[in-house]
Amino acid sequence: MATLDVPRKNYGKLRQFINGKWVESHSPNYAPLYDPGLGSIIGEVPLGTKDDVDEAVNAAYEAFKSWSKVPIPDRLQYLFKLKQILEDNKELIARVNTQNHGKSIGDSRGDIRRSIENVESSIAVLLSLSKGEYQREIASEIDEVMAREPLGVFAAVTPYNFPVMIPFWFIPYAIALGDTVVVKVSPVTPIPMTYVMELIAEVFPPGVLNLVHLDNSAVEYLVSHDKIEGTGFVGTSSIAMKLYSAAAASGKRYIGGGGAANYAVVMPDAELGNTVETLVHSKYGNAGQRCLAIQNIVVVGDDNYYNKFKNSFVERTKALKVGYGLNEGVEMGPMTTDQYRRNVMKKIDDALNEGAKLVLDGRNFTVNGYPSGFYLGPTILEDVSPTMATAREEIFGPVVNLMRAKELDEAVSWINAGKYHHSAVIFTQNGKWARTFSNEVRVGNVGVNIGVAAPVGWFPFGGKGISGLGSHHPQIDTVDFFTDRKIIITRWY
Amino acid sequence: MATLDVPRKNYGKLRQFINGKWVESHSPNYAPLYDPGLGSIIGEVPLGTKDDVDEAVNAAYEAFKSWSKVPIPDRLQYLFKLKQILEDNKELIARVNTQNHGKSIGDSRGDIRRSIENVESSIAVLLSLSKGEYQREIASEIDEVMAREPLGVFAAVTPYNFPVMIPFWFIPYAIALGDTVVVKVSPVTPIPMTYVMELIAEVFPPGVLNLVHLDNSAVEYLVSHDKIEGTGFVGTSSIAMKLYSAAAASGKRYIGGGGAANYAVVMPDAELGNTVETLVHSKYGNAGQRCLAIQNIVVVGDDNYYNKFKNSFVERTKALKVGYGLNEGVEMGPMTTDQYRRNVMKKIDDALNEGAKLVLDGRNFTVNGYPSGFYLGPTILEDVSPTMATAREEIFGPVVNLMRAKELDEAVSWINAGKYHHSAVIFTQNGKWARTFSNEVRVGNVGVNIGVAAPVGWFPFGGKGISGLGSHHPQIDTVDFFTDRKIIITRWY
Amino acid sequence: MATLDVPRKNYGKLRQFINGKWVESHSPNYAPLYDPGLGSIIGEVPLGTKDDVDEAVNAAYEAFKSWSKVPIPDRLQYLFKLKQILEDNKELIARVNTQNHGKSIGDSRGDIRRSIENVESSIAVLLSLSKGEYQREIASEIDEVMAREPLGVFAAVTPYNFPVMIPFWFIPYAIALGDTVVVKVSPVTPIPMTYVMELIAEVFPPGVLNLVHLDNSAVEYLVSHDKIEGTGFVGTSSIAMKLYSAAAASGKRYIGGGGAANYAVVMPDAELGNTVETLVHSKYGNAGQRCLAIQNIVVVGDDNYYNKFKNSFVERTKALKVGYGLNEGVEMGPMTTDQYRRNVMKKIDDALNEGAKLVLDGRNFTVNGYPSGFYLGPTILEDVSPTMATAREEIFGPVVNLMRAKELDEAVSWINAGKYHHSAVIFTQNGKWARTFSNEVRVGNVGVNIGVAAPVGWFPFGGKGISGLGSHHPQIDTVDFFTDRKIIITRWY
Amino acid sequence: MATLDVPRKNYGKLRQFINGKWVESHSPNYAPLYDPGLGSIIGEVPLGTKDDVDEAVNAAYEAFKSWSKVPIPDRLQYLFKLKQILEDNKELIARVNTQNHGKSIGDSRGDIRRSIENVESSIAVLLSLSKGEYQREIASEIDEVMAREPLGVFAAVTPYNFPVMIPFWFIPYAIALGDTVVVKVSPVTPIPMTYVMELIAEVFPPGVLNLVHLDNSAVEYLVSHDKIEGTGFVGTSSIAMKLYSAAAASGKRYIGGGGAANYAVVMPDAELGNTVETLVHSKYGNAGQRCLAIQNIVVVGDDNYYNKFKNSFVERTKALKVGYGLNEGVEMGPMTTDQYRRNVMKKIDDALNEGAKLVLDGRNFTVNGYPSGFYLGPTILEDVSPTMATAREEIFGPVVNLMRAKELDEAVSWINAGKYHHSAVIFTQNGKWARTFSNEVRVGNVGVNIGVAAPVGWFPFGGKGISGLGSHHPQIDTVDFFTDRKIIITRWY
Repeated sequence: MATLDVPRKNYGKLRQFINGKWVESHSPNYAPLYDPGLGSIIGEVPLGTKDDVDEAVNAAYEAFKSWSKVPIPDRLQYLFKLKQILEDNKELIARVNTQNHGKSIGDSRGDIRRSIENVESSIAVLLSLSKGEYQREIASEIDEVMAREPLGVFAAVTPYNFPVMIPFWFIPYAIALGDTVVVKVSPVTPIPMTYVMELIAEVFPPGVLNLVHLDNSAVEYLVSHDKIEGTGFVGTSSIAMKLYSAAAASGKRYIGGGGAANYAVVMPDAELGNTVETLVHSKYGNAGQRCLAIQNIVVVGDDNYYNKFKNSFVERTKALKVGYGLNEGVEMGPMTTDQYRRNVMKKIDDALNEGAKLVLDGRNFTVNGYPSGFYLGPTILEDVSPTMATAREEIFGPVVNLMRAKELDEAVSWINAGKYHHSAVIFTQNGKWARTFSNEVRVGNVGVNIGVAAPVGWFPFGGKGISGLGSHHPQIDTVDFFTDRKIIITRWY
Repeated sequence: MATLDVPRKNYGKLRQFINGKWVESHSPNYAPLYDPGLGSIIGEVPLGTKDDVDEAVNAAYEAFKSWSKVPIPDRLQYLFKLKQILEDNKELIARVNTQNHGKSIGDSRGDIRRSIENVESSIAVLLSLSKGEYQREIASEIDEVMAREPLGVFAAVTPYNFPVMIPFWFIPYAIALGDTVVVKVSPVTPIPMTYVMELIAEVFPPGVLNLVHLDNSAVEYLVSHDKIEGTGFVGTSSIAMKLYSAAAASGKRYIGGGGAANYAVVMPDAELGNTVETLVHSKYGNAGQRCLAIQNIVVVGDDNYYNKFKNSFVERTKALKVGYGLNEGVEMGPMTTDQYRRNVMKKIDDALNEGAKLVLDGRNFTVNGYPSGFYLGPTILEDVSPTMATAREEIFGPVVNLMRAKELDEAVSWINAGKYHHSAVIFTQNGKWARTFSNEVRVGNVGVNIGVAAPVGWFPFGGKGISGLGSHHPQIDTVDFFTDRKIIITRWY
Repeated sequence: MATLDVPRKNYGKLRQFINGKWVESHSPNYAPLYDPGLGSIIGEVPLGTKDDVDEAVNAAYEAFKSWSKVPIPDRLQYLFKLKQILEDNKELIARVNTQNHGKSIGDSRGDIRRSIENVESSIAVLLSLSKGEYQREIASEIDEVMAREPLGVFAAVTPYNFPVMIPFWFIPYAIALGDTVVVKVSPVTPIPMTYVMELIAEVFPPGVLNLVHLDNSAVEYLVSHDKIEGTGFVGTSSIAMKLYSAAAASGKRYIGGGGAANYAVVMPDAELGNTVETLVHSKYGNAGQRCLAIQNIVVVGDDNYYNKFKNSFVERTKALKVGYGLNEGVEMGPMTTDQYRRNVMKKIDDALNEGAKLVLDGRNFTVNGYPSGFYLGPTILEDVSPTMATAREEIFGPVVNLMRAKELDEAVSWINAGKYHHSAVIFTQNGKWARTFSNEVRVGNVGVNIGVAAPVGWFPFGGKGISGLGSHHPQIDTVDFFTDRKIIITRWY
Repeated sequence: MATLDVPRKNYGKLRQFINGKWVESHSPNYAPLYDPGLGSIIGEVPLGTKDDVDEAVNAAYEAFKSWSKVPIPDRLQYLFKLKQILEDNKELIARVNTQNHGKSIGDSRGDIRRSIENVESSIAVLLSLSKGEYQREIASEIDEVMAREPLGVFAAVTPYNFPVMIPFWFIPYAIALGDTVVVKVSPVTPIPMTYVMELIAEVFPPGVLNLVHLDNSAVEYLVSHDKIEGTGFVGTSSIAMKLYSAAAASGKRYIGGGGAANYAVVMPDAELGNTVETLVHSKYGNAGQRCLAIQNIVVVGDDNYYNKFKNSFVERTKALKVGYGLNEGVEMGPMTTDQYRRNVMKKIDDALNEGAKLVLDGRNFTVNGYPSGFYLGPTILEDVSPTMATAREEIFGPVVNLMRAKELDEAVSWINAGKYHHSAVIFTQNGKWARTFSNEVRVGNVGVNIGVAAPVGWFPFGGKGISGLGSHHPQIDTVDFFTDRKIIITRWY
């Protein structure tokens, strides 16, 4: 396997990967692509059309006919090959990932490790969880079998913040289980997954895995396409809701991961050194652009404790190395687009207007040597109440709200009254508080002394409510989503 | 537990069962209820309103708070109590079931057995399948737990053809798993489930299980209610689709069982005696009003074989005892409403118009002593092709289409090209044919020498495509539907 | 079901229950049976012979042929019936249990609840865990099925301390899974299980469940009997080892629960009120005659903390209501035999000889009105080190050793260096301590702020090492023990 | 990874692989090793002592302390590395395998594929089946966790006929689950596994995987070693029984795969072309030296059918290419030792003495150019009855008994009355016969139109009775064998 030279100065006009070939989009419209750390253009992405969708879905539909029948030990070897290529090229992929998204190279390395982890986990799915059930004599001389059957073509529609990892929350499972896939990635950060497709282009038979770049209007068409069985989506809750409606109106399966405005609760007995270090990474990793990021830190304790925590958190934040993501040692890179940067700055303004106080202001932040990058500095607000927009609405940037609660129950009630139900974490040494918190918070992912409660690939991953629509979560939980349970009842005479 | 005297001459105005009490509907509108075997009115059902929905959902919402926290061994005892009451009263329930629906008492006994079976199966769900997962050291000193948590209030919206059994495809699982339930039954056959609720009224704490009778317009309101987590529906595919859209638009979970136009394939080596007997029960049981009923019988074989099969099938059909369902020995009762009877007669007319030939005509059928009953005789058509409406569209009555195919593959291709993908059965002694058929047919339930491939409660039950929307099926497969997987990742320091 | 009048003054000569009938033992030898609270004889138990074994095993062997083929829904109903009879008679069974064993009626009620719980749990085993596996295309056109098949006759050899509960750790699972059973109970407390057999005599077909009373020499013959597939044993480790050898020499399956000398570790942050109350029940419940009893309490903390704990524990112990078990409110009854009482008194003497100090002496304990009962008072020793026999060897009586450790790690090292590896508990509010302890202690059952870590029926229950021989534990973990996994690989042409 | 040059003319004196290093045995005694196709000596194997055992077990015991705590994602990568090295060297390993064992290179390639398959399958075990369970509120405010914990050191004692594959039925699972392993291979074919250890020597930390060559007397010492937790054995039933006793006497876990005398039943409707081809491979593959080999072929049918089958089978057998295993195209190689050859020849003589008739005689068989090889020709006997020793006792060579039965039931009764209960296969097109056979035969592995019913790695593999001692089977079924279920019950206050 030749590895492909990256990072490149310019990736040119991206193409679609359909039926094992790189093809040009039917669309005449292209959007520019940036290195957000430099602020420079590094390529163009097509805003693909319904014709592109048809082409990709048809290829996947045809490929399903034989892929679904590949014997299990053979299908297995494809997954090992996929894992191997990703392992061999993980540093290159991480670099492309950072180049197009902006995040620190350390963050990107984590992303790619998680991507591979989902391939590893899909091996377990194929060999263990894809098994059906068998029971003899469910009535006299009658046996019943439950087979988990692949269904056909699935779409994966994925966001800009984890350009490779989130597609891999779906791809390996669907493929391991005998389905075929059309992946539609974000038009903001399409390069990393395109690069991965270059690397793995010959792993699967043509049509099994397809990659398309689409205009928003074509996405709904994809999700409700006649030959599609269902869609796995991750993105903002509003689009998640819209696509769920589109999927349902056409009778398709759907799961949709949405937004978040997560809380961390710091109890009076928390081990402050680790807590602060953990929270800083939780908040500023990926420049706050992740559904698991902590947005609101609630301190339970007296003034003295609050101030001690605040000072320590601010001090550590100020020491954060913000810079160009490809430079080793950088802890936080730029926002992914200039628009996103401005959106977040607007949210900071709004927060101040509704009464929040500024502890640390990142709005006029510059990075030496990178004058055109889309940088936004770490920002800390305090005197925030749970009903303010800055606490309730998703910020998706390096902004943190400091809040204070009298006791654990109050903090839990704020979390549960929130708009989103994605993740929540607690810092404490106390078993009872940890249990109460874990059981009572209405979110999908709970951390205890963990800043980013990201489940490993062989556990489900997702929020509740509008943070996680449908009845499955990405990763291993998709087994029943990507298969159907067929019943075969047999009597012989 | 006093058993309640039935069958009654008249059940009067049915009430809603909400929060442990029988309450009158807010609606002034009531529809008449019939004993279809007599053609007489036996009660009235309210066409409930949004106010009724609010009342029931609110009760269930409040009840969830404590029900979801009942320790498992205690919750378990409720299920045993439920099973016991149903067992103790099964004959009475069967009689009410037949009285309001018309089906033979034998069919009703089967229904109630299946209802109880789902309670039995929910015990296994609670003690085994509701368990979460635990893994130590998913990273250094970090552990991960996956808990299956109840979600809140679920709705069950169920059809007229199995007035008790289909509600029990959902109720015991939701309740066992810690959710609370609002059941909305068909306004055509609401009496049996209302009677069951009378029997079990005191089993659960108030609000855990609620029963409402609603106007159609209020159903969509129920499915998209703010305090509802999701809906399990069984009914026609068109309503299934409509409610799926309503559920999705409001971000709710949804599974929807739909219609069917099932095939049986009779291979040249089939053991004809058993095959015919089995097919007759499959077709005429429940007067053909069930999603598992065989609508199309495809014979593979030469003229001689076809004629032998046909003659035997017609002869056995003519011997079928059609009559008032409460009379012992009756094999087939009336249609459930006069409207349904006329609908099916219209379909027979249409079939003849599109070229089908009449082998046996049930249109002018009368039952001695029951002049006003909604009876329709067994009807057999032949020369039917798979593209005719009589083969493709759901008939839901005692009408069977005889068809002929050259070989197994042709029959399979017809099945897979159909509009519905519910069930399909084959009759053969040959292992290879059985395997090919089982693997290739695109349906949810397959029978081999079985006429009605109804999975036992501890296996999933449902169709594919518009015969089974969403990514779960009723019965045991609902574990992941009625719970969420919450992740708890823990590190201590 | 007529309930049978108990407690009786005298149960006469017990008989064997074989092949659905009560038969006299072939042995001429009988041993007396006592009410240990009164010290009076209440019956005689035969010391059965190899002939008794042959008769019972043959009956079970013949019964297996049809029992193993009973369709699952039918087999299920037997379990419900079993549960129902036990529920209906639980108070009576509890009374007989106390009468023959001596334990408080409260303890007996718990035993019977646990017995029933295992029947409940066996329902989940039958409907969920007994399922086999099915996978299509393990090679081209080849399918693989794994069926869990019952094996034949199993023996259950059970101890005196839980006369009914421990037999039920095996009986319902073996029977649910299609095996048949010969139960051999302790000759010291055979009455309760004999009484249960009277109650359930007609539940199962003849031969499915048999009860024998045997001389020790016949037990080895049972375990290695030609027609036996395996044995589930619970008793002392030395007999567990001996029977394991006998089973192995004849190629039989075997699991054997053995003895214990369990530790509780009280950390400096433990909530003392609950801790003391919990430990008192843990120690003196069943008069210390249970494998889950705490024998050694290790306090981690300074002198002040130790003294505070000790005083509180001694005070609560002194307040313990010791008396005749059938009197309501009694917390601890007598030892089960006079011999056991003398054995334990000897162990106290030995402990004092090896340097332990007496804090509370129960050796000359009397209960008013019960002058002939086998009573032994609660006894507390201190200054015990982990290498003393009183800490290392099983005491099996109401004697507790107080010990002190510098820190958690030291306590854990003592536990792990012990002879037995049954159970261990910790009292703390700290999450990290609880995790370290849970992970590091080499025992089968861990409690955190729990005195008696008795798993519910639907979890495994057992020790490691000589406290739990073989590779399965009683309760739900026996599914693979009581079945074999048969593989069926199929290709059709 | 440098691949190591093979085949070699002489492998010299084999060493032990202990604690990550190659060390000489403490024994002065060595036995010669052969290339059985050439009849020439190619090395020497030490007949190791108790000192060798101590050294290896101690290394494994120490290694366990850290290996058992390696976080799961890290442990996972070791398995991928193991798989990769085996894949990269599979042809070389296959060649060494054939060189030392004699089997055809095609057979060896299959062995190595199966070895790798077990590594693949162990990945699923680690990520999916090693998970524990978690359930909240098993009582009020009390949670229960079941953790699957590694236990310590396990021994694998494996036979000569699959020098690499059978060690891999145990190694990857034990290691994946956190245990460490001492492998003792056959002194007849120790070279292939020694070669594999050379290749993978640096994969695991020192002591995790150790390889020893032992004198028989040291094996029992290994199995009952103080620091061993259990043993997985495969070999003859007599040794399996002996080691089970040794294991039990010291309280160790044990599973032991034993011998076989398998039946194939050819029904009157079997597709003869495929049946004969399949049976020839089943019989002569590995020169009949495998537990899955068919020893007895029972034809059900009239004289004409029997003769047709016999002639076809004899004809195909005569066309079998017997020769030096490393020559491409050879279908059957020599016996592995000259002693084994003479043993089988003696069994043929005995069969003739008890009345069997010779259809094809392989006793004076030579292979051109390989005059000193241990070749034995295919041998076919007829007129064999099920009670003859040639049918009942294990032959383990290229000898087949033709038998005739009146009907399926008779054939099944012969199988079930046999001494061994390993495998049985049927050839038929009929579903009912296949089901009856599969359900009724008392063996562990059933084939339907399959000659060698070898389950894939992710299914259990093993016989019943003395063909499979203990309550687990090799491959994936060992999860519960290589772990213990620890219960943690927690309440916080």
